[in-house]
This record gives sequence, structure tokens and C-alpha cells, in this order.
Amino acid sequence: MDFSLSPRAADLRERVHAFLTSEIEPVEAEVHHRIKVARESGGDSWTPDPVIGELQAKAREQGLWNLFLPAAHAGSYGEGLSNVDYAAVAEVMGRSFLAPLVFNCNAPDTGNMEVLLKYGTDEQRAQWLEPLLRAEIRSAFCMTEPAVASSDATNMAATARIEGDEVVINGRKWWSTGVGNPDCKIFVFMGLSDPEADRHSRHTMVLVPRDTEGVEVERMLTTMGYYDEPLGHGEVSFTDVRVPVGNVLLGPGRAFEIAQGRLGPGRVHHCMRAIGLAERALELACTRAVSRTAFGKPIANLGGNRERIADARIAINRSRLLVMHAAWLLDQGMSREAYSAVSEIKVEVPNMALDVIDMAIQLHGGGGMSDDFPLANAWVGARSLRLADGPDEVHRNVVAKIELGKYVG
Amino acid sequence: MDFSLSPRAADLRERVHAFLTSEIEPVEAEVHHRIKVARESGGDSWTPDPVIGELQAKAREQGLWNLFLPAAHAGSYGEGLSNVDYAAVAEVMGRSFLAPLVFNCNAPDTGNMEVLLKYGTDEQRAQWLEPLLRAEIRSAFCMTEPAVASSDATNMAATARIEGDEVVINGRKWWSTGVGNPDCKIFVFMGLSDPEADRHSRHTMVLVPRDTEGVEVERMLTTMGYYDEPLGHGEVSFTDVRVPVGNVLLGPGRAFEIAQGRLGPGRVHHCMRAIGLAERALELACTRAVSRTAFGKPIANLGGNRERIADARIAINRSRLLVMHAAWLLDQGMSREAYSAVSEIKVEVPNMALDVIDMAIQLHGGGGMSDDFPLANAWVGARSLRLADGPDEVHRNVVAKIELGKYVG
Amino acid sequence: MDFSLSPRAADLRERVHAFLTSEIEPVEAEVHHRIKVARESGGDSWTPDPVIGELQAKAREQGLWNLFLPAAHAGSYGEGLSNVDYAAVAEVMGRSFLAPLVFNCNAPDTGNMEVLLKYGTDEQRAQWLEPLLRAEIRSAFCMTEPAVASSDATNMAATARIEGDEVVINGRKWWSTGVGNPDCKIFVFMGLSDPEADRHSRHTMVLVPRDTEGVEVERMLTTMGYYDEPLGHGEVSFTDVRVPVGNVLLGPGRAFEIAQGRLGPGRVHHCMRAIGLAERALELACTRAVSRTAFGKPIANLGGNRERIADARIAINRSRLLVMHAAWLLDQGMSREAYSAVSEIKVEVPNMALDVIDMAIQLHGGGGMSDDFPLANAWVGARSLRLADGPDEVHRNVVAKIELGKYVG
Amino acid sequence: MDFSLSPRAADLRERVHAFLTSEIEPVEAEVHHRIKVARESGGDSWTPDPVIGELQAKAREQGLWNLFLPAAHAGSYGEGLSNVDYAAVAEVMGRSFLAPLVFNCNAPDTGNMEVLLKYGTDEQRAQWLEPLLRAEIRSAFCMTEPAVASSDATNMAATARIEGDEVVINGRKWWSTGVGNPDCKIFVFMGLSDPEADRHSRHTMVLVPRDTEGVEVERMLTTMGYYDEPLGHGEVSFTDVRVPVGNVLLGPGRAFEIAQGRLGPGRVHHCMRAIGLAERALELACTRAVSRTAFGKPIANLGGNRERIADARIAINRSRLLVMHAAWLLDQGMSREAYSAVSEIKVEVPNMALDVIDMAIQLHGGGGMSDDFPLANAWVGARSLRLADGPDEVHRNVVAKIELGKYVG
Repeated sequence: MDFSLSPRAADLRERVHAFLTSEIEPVEAEVHHRIKVARESGGDSWTPDPVIGELQAKAREQGLWNLFLPAAHAGSYGEGLSNVDYAAVAEVMGRSFLAPLVFNCNAPDTGNMEVLLKYGTDEQRAQWLEPLLRAEIRSAFCMTEPAVASSDATNMAATARIEGDEVVINGRKWWSTGVGNPDCKIFVFMGLSDPEADRHSRHTMVLVPRDTEGVEVERMLTTMGYYDEPLGHGEVSFTDVRVPVGNVLLGPGRAFEIAQGRLGPGRVHHCMRAIGLAERALELACTRAVSRTAFGKPIANLGGNRERIADARIAINRSRLLVMHAAWLLDQGMSREAYSAVSEIKVEVPNMALDVIDMAIQLHGGGGMSDDFPLANAWVGARSLRLADGPDEVHRNVVAKIELGKYVG
Repeated sequence: MDFSLSPRAADLRERVHAFLTSEIEPVEAEVHHRIKVARESGGDSWTPDPVIGELQAKAREQGLWNLFLPAAHAGSYGEGLSNVDYAAVAEVMGRSFLAPLVFNCNAPDTGNMEVLLKYGTDEQRAQWLEPLLRAEIRSAFCMTEPAVASSDATNMAATARIEGDEVVINGRKWWSTGVGNPDCKIFVFMGLSDPEADRHSRHTMVLVPRDTEGVEVERMLTTMGYYDEPLGHGEVSFTDVRVPVGNVLLGPGRAFEIAQGRLGPGRVHHCMRAIGLAERALELACTRAVSRTAFGKPIANLGGNRERIADARIAINRSRLLVMHAAWLLDQGMSREAYSAVSEIKVEVPNMALDVIDMAIQLHGGGGMSDDFPLANAWVGARSLRLADGPDEVHRNVVAKIELGKYVG
Repeated sequence: MDFSLSPRAADLRERVHAFLTSEIEPVEAEVHHRIKVARESGGDSWTPDPVIGELQAKAREQGLWNLFLPAAHAGSYGEGLSNVDYAAVAEVMGRSFLAPLVFNCNAPDTGNMEVLLKYGTDEQRAQWLEPLLRAEIRSAFCMTEPAVASSDATNMAATARIEGDEVVINGRKWWSTGVGNPDCKIFVFMGLSDPEADRHSRHTMVLVPRDTEGVEVERMLTTMGYYDEPLGHGEVSFTDVRVPVGNVLLGPGRAFEIAQGRLGPGRVHHCMRAIGLAERALELACTRAVSRTAFGKPIANLGGNRERIADARIAINRSRLLVMHAAWLLDQGMSREAYSAVSEIKVEVPNMALDVIDMAIQLHGGGGMSDDFPLANAWVGARSLRLADGPDEVHRNVVAKIELGKYVG
Repeated sequence: MDFSLSPRAADLRERVHAFLTSEIEPVEAEVHHRIKVARESGGDSWTPDPVIGELQAKAREQGLWNLFLPAAHAGSYGEGLSNVDYAAVAEVMGRSFLAPLVFNCNAPDTGNMEVLLKYGTDEQRAQWLEPLLRAEIRSAFCMTEPAVASSDATNMAATARIEGDEVVINGRKWWSTGVGNPDCKIFVFMGLSDPEADRHSRHTMVLVPRDTEGVEVERMLTTMGYYDEPLGHGEVSFTDVRVPVGNVLLGPGRAFEIAQGRLGPGRVHHCMRAIGLAERALELACTRAVSRTAFGKPIANLGGNRERIADARIAINRSRLLVMHAAWLLDQGMSREAYSAVSEIKVEVPNMALDVIDMAIQLHGGGGMSDDFPLANAWVGARSLRLADGPDEVHRNVVAKIELGKYVG
């Protein structure tokens, strides 16, 4: 066993960290403030702040761009990183909500780009992947539906019927992340295409340009009270939307196949970012603990505060190792063990991050609940992760099924 | 022992519940929606929605008004309820964020009215208490400060110096609940008046009309993205504010004495409302659990969901009894046991409510995080309670001190 | 609501407490020591220590005898206490493992006596109930079986077939508490009598004298290394055991009816004793916390110890109220609410007690795991309660079923 | 990063596992049974069962002997393993309480041998280390004292005064593991030698042969109800015991220096064994879950059982990685990070193991508490680990100190 980072990962991690602390963190608060002011004055809070574009240009110049590209599928688009190497970098990006945007490594664009890399036709890539890689446009992934329990993906009711050389799309999706941004031009839509087919061959994934007739972003949703601009999470209706059959990804009825491959690395990214978030929360907690005074002592020395800080350190460290190990398993090739590992981190990490951030909030008193610190927003982000990409309960069931599978014929 | 409600409490509880379900719950969503639209379009989200005034009139007509008035201090203002009887009613009011306003039983007005009842001069009462009891004006309580750890109230740094027949006030307060509402006309301010005095005699409470020169509501604060209109939580600066010495409550240096008496019943109210909130969350969870289907079953029958529902029922029931018992102890007169009991519920109940609401959110999937259900807002409210009126840690320390006190000379 | 004890309960509680501290606690350690020495030297650790008989005589003389007798069924045998009143007394008895024996209030004899009171024929009562009430003999309850999951009582496989005027009994039971004691003369056996009958009418309860041919106490079981002398938990085989049909309780096929009625009060007793145990653990913890020193301070002042003591106080108080409320509901007559309440306490209390005792053990260091303090044994007793009379999971399911039942047709 | 085992560790792990399942597990139950029978019949339960000696011979023959020897200090005694490599092997040994004895890798002998390797004189090694390496004798470590809080090692009150060419030893120790075994011939004693010296130079470690005059094993202690034969935990008094000054280890006043070095690897071993124990408990839980039936289903499919099994799998996996990482840090040389890591695992792992084992007990019903399964004993072992080698609270404090140290000058 060797727990040291590869030289390339160590170098990228350090450079991303330097960029983050020198370029992103100093402007973070003002960007959030401008968004808030715009939202509350009836202005436009959705068009990305110009600072983001400037930072993107700088990051690209420094080679800190599209680092998510997987070594296995990057092809002519770059060198790509292994899951382990990228995980180490993603942690650092997770420290700031702006960072993934700045480095063109934000969900759901990364997942959509990966799908196009792996399964896109040359045409689909030229039209959509390339502008995405250059951050000229953004994308959404339309999967979850308001009317059914999406934890069971086979419940999905929106339709994508193939009629001749067209796909006819109807239905309603929500929690489509990214649609708030006016640059979000392309939606990856998953719908029921053949109700008679085998349970996992009934659904199709298809590329739907946002400006197609019948596509309507009905409203943007809040998580707790946050809109998460400039991406946001939208509710989108599709009414007799027609796109050419060439927009189908991989082939009719193959949506589950795509979803499967998409989700492993995506969950590793989410989890590593959540670890970065937890690390930042712990830093804020410690800074506060040594600098605030109550009852004549730094609050670090009051009651169980030290024990809670220790528990946070332990929890972060163990979770990080679990995610790095899952990434390593993915690098070894998909296996039952890797499949379980991805579900394991999906349960472990968001819950861990919530505990750490909650502790940090508590140490900050009322301020911790406000926007004077990034903690409230961090908590909401981590809480959402217990639902996004499958709720805890579904992932626990995956882990248990694999575990118990060792004991039955 | 007799766990049945008194006939009066049972009657009021039932009538408040009927009012709530027939009058308040049907309009709740639209009121919240109007507030949201106003806020996001740069409109006025702070002036209370007209529906609230209409409901107040109806509630008053039905005698469901100022029920918080304590039997012990109501005097000529009404009959008043014991802590136990009011606790039973407060639980029901806690089901809706609008309800406490509608019944003129919302914090911090109730606490402020109680202080005026107990300690106000005839003049102070005529000028402030009476319009408050009629809900013509609203009030705030300015105690917490941004620059010091307010968990240790002796840290309080804002000043209220008595100079001749005036009190000169300087400093900065935040989390002053209610100041968003333009009807909020009077602030109860607590400040350092005599730094040389005994630790608990250094501070003075004084009535400061909002329109006094030098009072500035600097900004409204969010809790996890929510402004909690129409009350809100504000940051207020006081710069060389001068009020007549007749505005002092009880007497110079007696702020802690007032604060002490204020907080017992106030915490019982908060906690009973949190129990009502938890009950509503459990109702929503059960409704969802029996009506949504995944993997071919109602989600109630999946994995640990039933066990979690049972745990929620157990937790609510035990917490309710703990609060009712604390209320009963307060009714018996202040004692070390009552003092401990109030801190015990302050730790137990918000944490319990958070667990129950979080479970309900999880059962609702993404929607649980949005404003389509009252759960996200409920969670934030309960989370704030772990900090408001003293963080958990401070209350645990009170309980431990009393417990360990039995074992040392 | 009135949380004060009835004068009778308050008086009995105080007298039991006085007896406990003056008569039982001083000899407790030496009794346990004599049992241990006997066991390890191959001697007789099962015949009750003579001190127990002497204390029983004293307790009886003082009227502290058979207090468990329920007001509703005591009949000519005494005045009986309500569930609420007895619960208050049972808590005190729970402080010591000897106390229930001393006051003739120990399980399973209390449950068996109650069954005989409620369902026994005059003959059955004369022969078994009367000597039990005088503590001349002891009894066991043979229900759990090693070969099936007894959490589902309908799994029960041992048979009690009625053949003419005899009942023929076959099968194997374990966790039959009390059979270690040579005075244990009568077993209440539950077995399958009619496999074709309705699910809840298949089983019959029958009185089996221990010395009947074919009854064999195969071995005594340990719980985490403890034998719990002088009662103990045994594995008992029944091989073609024949008893007269007059030994059947209530009637063939009516075992579930009996079991149901038996378990409500029995669980209240268990839970209140567990609260007494937790109180004692907290006392030991506090005593230790203020008297031991490390790092230059009493250990009470180290890290999170005060917070843990506060949490223990909160947990005990809330659990006690939940049990008292369940007892009160039982006193009002069986209802769905009472039925739920009994399962609620069965989940809540043992888990609460375990947390408190574990905290106390931790504060005692290594000694807490040894027999120098009653904590290790207390922990094991509380842990067993999470399984005895139905595991947590089964009781959670009962609570959830009643809760969800409110939402389905 | 590379999470694969080295070929040597993989090979040893597999061979130890094969030995364990083919040679040790089949006899485990009968050995425990013979010990129990001996104890309860007043026989000798302390002389190691002859099977252990036979298995030791076989293990030695196969080269599965003294694997604990650290590469860094093994010297002429063998090749030694890195901490990472040995950790992987220790996990497997942890599955059975007999295994560490069989492979001559049990505490406290391993720690004592390591101390002799690192700090012993040639004479000390010839006399004590060599027979220990051959398992001809056994050893104890006498550190914890009944009269003081040993969590603060500077509290230690027993004395080891140097008088001329002798060390005079007085005091009382307990939890001296191994002294039950009559082969335990040498005690490593730690005592106060110079109360005036600097806090960490006051204590001395000295070798005390068991048969020295004035050494008395007063009694053997139980943990819960277990004696843990054939090693056991004893209380030992030392009354004017005199040994030559040549028995001092490293030098007078250097006990803390030795203790420090001893504890890092020792804690890794303990923790990895606890992980092996947890793995075995999970195996038993899964086996039970798929084979027992209640309410018409395998109990795996009831309520939250699958979720609990998933949580156990997640918890074990993350803990294992945390320990392996700590071992790897130790292999890189002692650092603040390694120092924290050792305390982190000491908190994380025993608590994790307790949760997993408790879940497995619960799934086994009453049997889980008995000795029919190794779970009750496993639980007690893991619980002891929360106190042995420093309680959780002390280790949390170490972690917090290092963490907060990053934020203060």
C-alpha cells in the first residue's frame, strides 16, 4: 500500500489550491453578494457574474481546465486523469462553490461531457461536447420527476417515443441542475421509450436543445432558501417536443446503460468535493474556536468542543480514505466491490460532511446560520447530496444486496 | 399523576386546532408565495400580508387571542393560562409559522409583553403594552451582539449609560427578531450600564422607540437562505441614542433579573411550538409514506422507513412530556428543578424536532428541500432554536451544574 | 395535568427507598461476592443466599410486599396499586438486582402471579398462586425457543397437544428465567396445540410442575458472562411431558390472549426498573466525576464530561415521563394509544439506560467493566432488555403500524 | 496511491487466514467450553489448554510465528514486517481470541518484546526476550493503578526508587493483562522514581520477575462477566520488592519515552484485530440474516436490517482504511500526523466494532448474549478497548490538540 499522491496529482492539487486561495476565495463573498442583491431587487441573478468568466480564462491559461477528463475516455481531448488523481484535485475544488465552475469541472456538465465522450457520435461531440469543453455553453440532465419516486428509476414516466426519424418527448422533470443559467443550451433527457421492453431497456436518453419548441423551464426551485445561482435547479416541462432521432445517445432503450457508467465517477467527484467542504468547515470551526472567548476562555476549551473537533478530524480522514479507495477501485475496472464502494461513499460522505458543518455552525452561533459565513450554504449543499443521485436508503440497499449476496447461493 | 388536559386547555386546544386547519392552513401556501414573489421582484415582502390582519380579527373575535397571558401576571388584562395549559395550546400553534402571529402569541412580542406586565410602570404599559396586546404595534428584543460570544451574556458590550435623566445607548445588536416588520415600533435593549458592578448587575434593560435618532436597522439577516418575513431578524446599530431614564425597565443594573424570569416560559413556548412542528412533519411523512410507491411498494414498507417513523413517534411523545413537565414545574414556582427542566427541554426538543423533520424531508425526496412542502423551512426554524436563547452547550452546562451540585458540599 | 405522585405512591416509594438504602445496598456486594465464590469453587451459587430470605421477612413485615399486585385484579389478595403508582415504586426497586426479589416483585414471578390472578381457576390459585405470593416457591415462563426466531411468536414450534384429559408437551425452550433457583417449582409453558387453527388461536398455555417426568433443565445460559444467580436463565427440554388438562390456563388456544394482557404491565415494570438502574448509574458517574482527578482537575471538568452528564439527566427524565404516561394509559384501559405506548417505552428505555450506564462505565475507567461497581452487570441487564419481551425492531414495528394506521383507510 | 497489499503481506494474510479457518476455528468452541467447565467446577482454568501449545508448534513450523516483529527493530531475530504489512495480517488474527496466542502475536507480549528489542540490554534480551519469542514464558505490563485516574499517566503513584544498585518497588497495579497464566514470568513495571524531576522524567520502567519476594497477584478481574483465560487481567501488589538496577529499561526516568514508542504500533495491532472481530461479527450477522425466518421472510428482509448491514459494511471499510493509513504513517517515521492518526484510530475503531457487534447480537436474539456465539465475548473485548491504552476522551484530546495547534502561534 502506498498512500502518497502521484506527482502529477500532487502538483495539480497544489496548483488548484493556490489558485483557489489567491484568486477565488478573495472574490467569493462579493460574487455571492452581487447575486443576492440582484435577486432581491428583481434584477438578473442568473447570468453568471463576469468574474467567473475572467477566472475561467486564467484557469485555462494555467492548464487547470477540464481536469475531470478521465484518462480512459479523454481521447484526443486531453491527457485525462485517473479517478484517484482527479479525486485528490476535486477535494480542493469542493472548498468553494465557485471553484468547480471556474475550472470547468462542475456537475452536471462533467457528467454530460463524459457521456458525450463515451457514447456521443462525432456529430454530437462536435455540436455539443466541444463548446462544453470550452465552457461556451452549459448543459442539464433531466431525469428526476415530481410525480413519481425517482429513487426507483424504473418509475420514470416522462416519454421519449421514437416516431420515424423523430423522438417525441413529453413529461415533466425537476431538479434539473443548471437550467437557471441562460448559457445552458442542451438538456440530456431520459424518458420511457418502450414500456413493453425489459425493465432496464425501456428508457432512452436523448439530447434536447433548450430552444426546441415545447420545452419550458417552468420555475426555479429553492433548496432550503437557496437558488444556487448561477446554475440553479429547475422544473422543466416537455410538451410534444420533437428532436431528430440522431439526438438519441448510444441507442434507443440504452439509457440505464449510460446512467450506470455515468454515476460511478460522478459520485466520487461529489463526495470528494463534500470532503473539501467539510475540511473548510473544520478550518472555520478551529479558527473560531481559538479566537472567540466566552466564560473567560477560548471557546475551544469549553465543554465538549475539543472532542467535537477531534471527531470531525477523524470523520473527515476516514471518509477521504473511503472515497480515494472507491476511486482506486474504479480505476481497476468496474467490479461488484467497486459498485458497492461507490454506494458506500454516497452514504458515508454527505452524512459525515453534515455533521462536521453542523458542528462548525454551532460554534459560530447565529452567524453560522447567516450568509456571513459559507457554512449555511455548505450545509444545504451537503444535505441535498443525501438525496441527489439516489437517497441514502437506496445506496444502503445496494451495499446490503452485495454484502448479503456473498451468503446466498 | 394525571396526564389529562384541564377542560379549559382541552377546549382552547381544540378550538385553536380547528381555527388552524380551517382558516390558516388553507392560506398558508399562498401567503408564503406572495412574500416570495414580492421579495424576488424587488417588492415589499415585509409589510404583513393583509390576510394576517383579517385572521387576527377573527381569532380575537373567537377569544383565541393573547392566550400566552400568564395567569400569574395577567392582572386586569385577562384571565391568563397556567404554563401547562398554555403549553398544550402553543403546541398546536407551532404547526404553522403564521399561527403565532394570528393569535398574537408570537415571539418576541409575547416575551416583551410579559416583561411589561411584570415589570412595566403604568406609563410604560399604557404606551407600549396595550397596543402590543391589540397587535397594533410589534416589538423587538435587542440582546445578541455580533462581536462577542453571546452565549455568555456577561460578554455583552453594547452600552446603556445613565447620564442624568437620560440613558445613552451605543452598540450593535443582531438577530433582533421582528425588526423587518414596519409595525415594529419598540425595541427592548439590553446593555452594559455599570462595568464596575457585580457581574450580574452590570446590565440594564431599556425601552427604545425605533424612531429614536441614532437607531438604524442596518440589514436583515437570512437563516439558511430564509428571511422569515414578515418578522425577520435584523442587525441594528445604536449610535448615541438617547431616551429618558423613565424608559428603563425595573431599574438600572437589573437586566439579568428580568432576562431570567423572561426566559423560562419563553423557552417552554418555543419548545412546545417545535413539538407541534415535529408532529406536522411526522404527519407529512406518514402521508407520503403510505401514498408514494417505489420498487413496487408504498415507501412506508421499504427498508428502515417504518422503524424511523416509530422512532419519530417515540421521540415526539417523550419530548412533549418533558416540556409539559417543565411547564408544570414552572407553575409550581421557580426551583432548581424547574431551572434545570427549562434547560433540559431547550436541549432535547430542537434536536428531536430536527431529527423528525429531517426524516420527513428524506421521505419527500428533492421536494422536501424545496418550498413545495413546509419541511425545509421547519428544519431551519428548529435549527435556529439550537442557538437562539442560548446554544445547546450552554444549557447542557446548566443541567450538569445542577446535577453535579447534588454531589458537592 | 398533575405530575405529583399520589400520597400512597409517594409514601411507598419513600419507604421502599429507605429499605433499599438501609437494608439492601449494604449487603449487596457481599451477596454477589458469595455467589461468585460459590460459582468459581464448584459450589452452589443457585440456592438463594440466606440474607434474601431474611430481608424478605422484614419487607413483608413492613408491608412492602407484593406491591406489584394490580388494583384491577388483586381481588382478595390485597389492595393493589394502579400501574402509575406501582411504576413509581418499581423505579426504586430497579436500583438493585436484589431488591425485586426482596419485595417479591421480580420477573417472571410477578407476570405469572398476575396471570394466575386473572385467569387461574380456584384450584390453580390455591396450588400455585398462594405459595408464590408468600415467596415459598418460584416460577418460570417458558416461551422463547432456540430453533426459531421468537420475535415472531407465531413461529413457536414446541407442542402442547390435548389428548383426552391430558396435555402432552414436547419441545425445547430457553431463556426461561428463574429455573436456576431450586425453589422454582412451576413452569408456565406456551406451545402449539392446534396448527390448523387461526394464527392467534393455535397456542395454549399450561402449568407444568418442574418435577414432572420429561422436564429437564439442560443448562443455564450466560448473558455476557453473567449467570444472574439466584434466578438465571435456563434451557429446558420437554419430552413427552404429560399434565392434566386442568393445568391449561384460560382454555386451549388462548395463549396469545393471555400473553397480550401479561405484557403491558410487565413491560412497564421492566422499564421503570431500568430507569432506576440508570439513575443509580448516573449517581455513580457524578460521584466519580467530582471525586477523581486527572490533568489537575476533577474529571467532571474535563472535555465533554459535563455535557454527557447533562445528556444523561435529560434522557432519564424524558424516559421516566414516557413510562409513567404509558402506565397511566394502561390505567385508563387498553387502547391503541396504550398499546403503542407500551412498545414505545420498550424501545426507548433500555436504549436510554444503556447510554447512561455506558457513560458511567467510561467515567469509571477499567473498574467500570469489573464487578467492583454494579455498572457492568447493569449494562448487561439493560442490554438483555433490548431482546427480552420482543426486540426493539418488533416494537418499532408495532408503533409504526399504529401510527401509519391513522393514514390508511 | 496504491491500495493493494504487498505480495508478502498478501501471502501471509492468506496463510494466516487458512490456518485460522482450518486449525483454530474448529477447536475454538471446545477450548472455551473446557475453560468454562474448569472455572465453574473449581478447576484450573488458567493453565493454557494443551491445544494451544500444539497449534503454536504448527504455526511456528509454517513460519507463521512472531509476525509482529517490526522490520525496523527485528535485528537478528527475523526479517520483520512493516506496520502496514503486519496490520493486514493482524486483522485476520483478530477474528479469534485464540489466534494471537497461537501465532505468538498477543498483547501484551508483543509490546513487551518490542520494548526489549528496542531498549533491552543484551543480558535482558537473553534472559527474557528469547524465551518470549519462543513462547516459553509470558509477560505482563504493570501500568494502570486502581487508586488514580490512569488516563493521566502522570498520576501514577506506585514507586520504583533507585537505592544503590537496587530498585525498590511499592504500589498496586491492576488490569495487568496476562498474569492469570502461570507461564507469565516477567512483569514490566512502571513507577515513580523521582517526584522532583520534570513531569515526563519522573517515572522508570523496570523488569520484575514474578517470583520476586513482595510481588503478589491479589486477584483476577472480570470484564463484564469474563475472565479472558488463559491470560486474564490481574490486580498485583508490590511490597518492598527489590530487583537489581540492571533490570531498569533504557534508564531511570525514561519510562515515558519507552511508553510513547510502544504505543503507536500496539494501538495499530489492537485496532486491526478489532476490525477482524467486526468482520467476523458481520459475517455471523449476514449468515443469520439469510437463514432465520420471521413473519414469513428471512430476517434480512425485515425492517431496517438491510440498512444496518450496509452501515456495518461501510463502517468496517472506512475504519480499516484509517488504520492502514495510520500504519503507513508510522512506517514513514513518527510525525505529528502519525501521532494524531494513532489516536484517531483508537477512538474510531473500538466504537465502530461495538456498533457492528451489537447489531450482530441483536440479529441473533437472546443467543447473541450467550456463549453459543462468539459475539458477547467480542463485544466485551471491543468495549474494553475504549478504555485500555487510554480512554476515547484522552485520545480525542490528543487529536484536537494537534488540530487546533495548526491555528495558534
